[in-house]
Amino acid sequence: MDEKSLLRTFLRELGEEENDVSYIDGLALKVDGFAESYAKMPFHTYADMGWRAVAAALSDMKVKLAHTKAVLSSITAPEPHKALEVFRGILEAATHFGVRYLGGDLNQGVEVVVDIMAVGTTAVKIGRRPRAGHVLITPPLFGYTGLAFAAFEHDGESPIVAKGIRWLKRPSLDWPPPPPPECISASMDSSDGLADVLLTMAKGVDIVVERLPAPQEVISEALRLGFEPEEVVFNAGEEYLPVFAVDPRCVPEGYVAFARVVEGSGSVIYKGKPLKYRGWSYFR
Amino acid sequence: MDEKSLLRTFLRELGEEENDVSYIDGLALKVDGFAESYAKMPFHTYADMGWRAVAAALSDMKVKLAHTKAVLSSITAPEPHKALEVFRGILEAATHFGVRYLGGDLNQGVEVVVDIMAVGTTAVKIGRRPRAGHVLITPPLFGYTGLAFAAFEHDGESPIVAKGIRWLKRPSLDWPPPPPPECISASMDSSDGLADVLLTMAKGVDIVVERLPAPQEVISEALRLGFEPEEVVFNAGEEYLPVFAVDPRCVPEGYVAFARVVEGSGSVIYKGKPLKYRGWSYFR
Repeated sequence: MDEKSLLRTFLRELGEEENDVSYIDGLALKVDGFAESYAKMPFHTYADMGWRAVAAALSDMKVKLAHTKAVLSSITAPEPHKALEVFRGILEAATHFGVRYLGGDLNQGVEVVVDIMAVGTTAVKIGRRPRAGHVLITPPLFGYTGLAFAAFEHDGESPIVAKGIRWLKRPSLDWPPPPPPECISASMDSSDGLADVLLTMAKGVDIVVERLPAPQEVISEALRLGFEPEEVVFNAGEEYLPVFAVDPRCVPEGYVAFARVVEGSGSVIYKGKPLKYRGWSYFR
Repeated sequence: MDEKSLLRTFLRELGEEENDVSYIDGLALKVDGFAESYAKMPFHTYADMGWRAVAAALSDMKVKLAHTKAVLSSITAPEPHKALEVFRGILEAATHFGVRYLGGDLNQGVEVVVDIMAVGTTAVKIGRRPRAGHVLITPPLFGYTGLAFAAFEHDGESPIVAKGIRWLKRPSLDWPPPPPPECISASMDSSDGLADVLLTMAKGVDIVVERLPAPQEVISEALRLGFEPEEVVFNAGEEYLPVFAVDPRCVPEGYVAFARVVEGSGSVIYKGKPLKYRGWSYFR
């Protein structure tokens, strides 16, 4: 049982909706975290881990149009200096994103684990199931993190790969302003890869991908380095880019419509065939 | 730098008050967790870890008279079946304590780490600094967990030790009704031991301990098994019992006044001498 099916089992037992944030009494709540052994790459510092956990939680809040009031952290570390580095990264991120950091818990363990809790308010609830007839939109910036995952060891001098590494170290959530809430039928941020977003959204509908939401420089660089562009665009993760399902008349500046939502039963179609990528999942 | 001084450093940098919950806009927030390597004893199941993390978070909320709306979890585990066991323990605890469990995050790591986030509302804010002239009150039930920590390997047949083991596996937060808020100058639950509570509360005041808030059966059993009663009462942890500093006229049914708060500069006095116990701290 992989992470996604296990999470679905949990939520079914709880009778809670599958979504990227939880709603209760006008609040939006998000918990996001990871462990060193699976989420820290050679170029990451412990401070980067702290920053990324904040970005990961805020990305979910932001894609649901929630306003984050504050974050708290739980830091597990084998030694105090590592905990302190994580703390500094969380604080830098909270300062960067303009969110109050209230502190939290500190524990000893065999490896570093960072968990961030974000609490905010929201006027709207947005789920994960897009309406047929809507289009999926995103800033067309996928692929940098995919290139970095694939090539960080060998191609650090490629400026495109270097951009991907910076993105993986300190995601900035520098998104163009979102569409108005009345245009949106669903939204998700890409943390486990665009393929995961598409497969998750394709419940009770089909999604037809019409173009790769990636810059030409990423496609060219992938080809130059010998990688399939689709692999780095669909199958990476940690882009922390928003995907909104919107009325086709509501595509704001900075976003491209890259897929259509049609009546169907859960397929994601790319170039006439079912998408073969699945994105990231633990325990797979 | 141990856990306590590192947490103080964090909060000083953040400009946030040292307290057991965080307050923002009428909400009370708490994050509490631990890692398998430091918090799972041989008699604990993974489900027990889940239950305890919920109890630990709710204990802090309850001692501040906050009403918990919901909990979320972040579960890190090396294998899915361990994550599932933790989940079941969290769900059992949430059901037992009548709190909604909204789900949360799931990650892979080298050991099990459980973090629980509790969100609630509160009409009052209660800190950690008691007023001189107040008394410290608690249900006089300290010592069971201390006996269990000290003797679980050898004295499992002692019913008193067995009670301590049950307490460590599934803390019940079965407290008598608290004093009214207007009587309270400070409160803390005992998660890292009564000595830690007393030393933390003794800031700008002295605390004079006048009796051990423990049942006679615990004192007798400690002596029978060859342990110092003070060690099991002051230096254990995970009792999840409340300590309130109150006006001496406000001692409710089920609580005993066991210490006096007097003018002073941060000493805890027991039998005429500074208390030699310090309770639990990571990284010490």
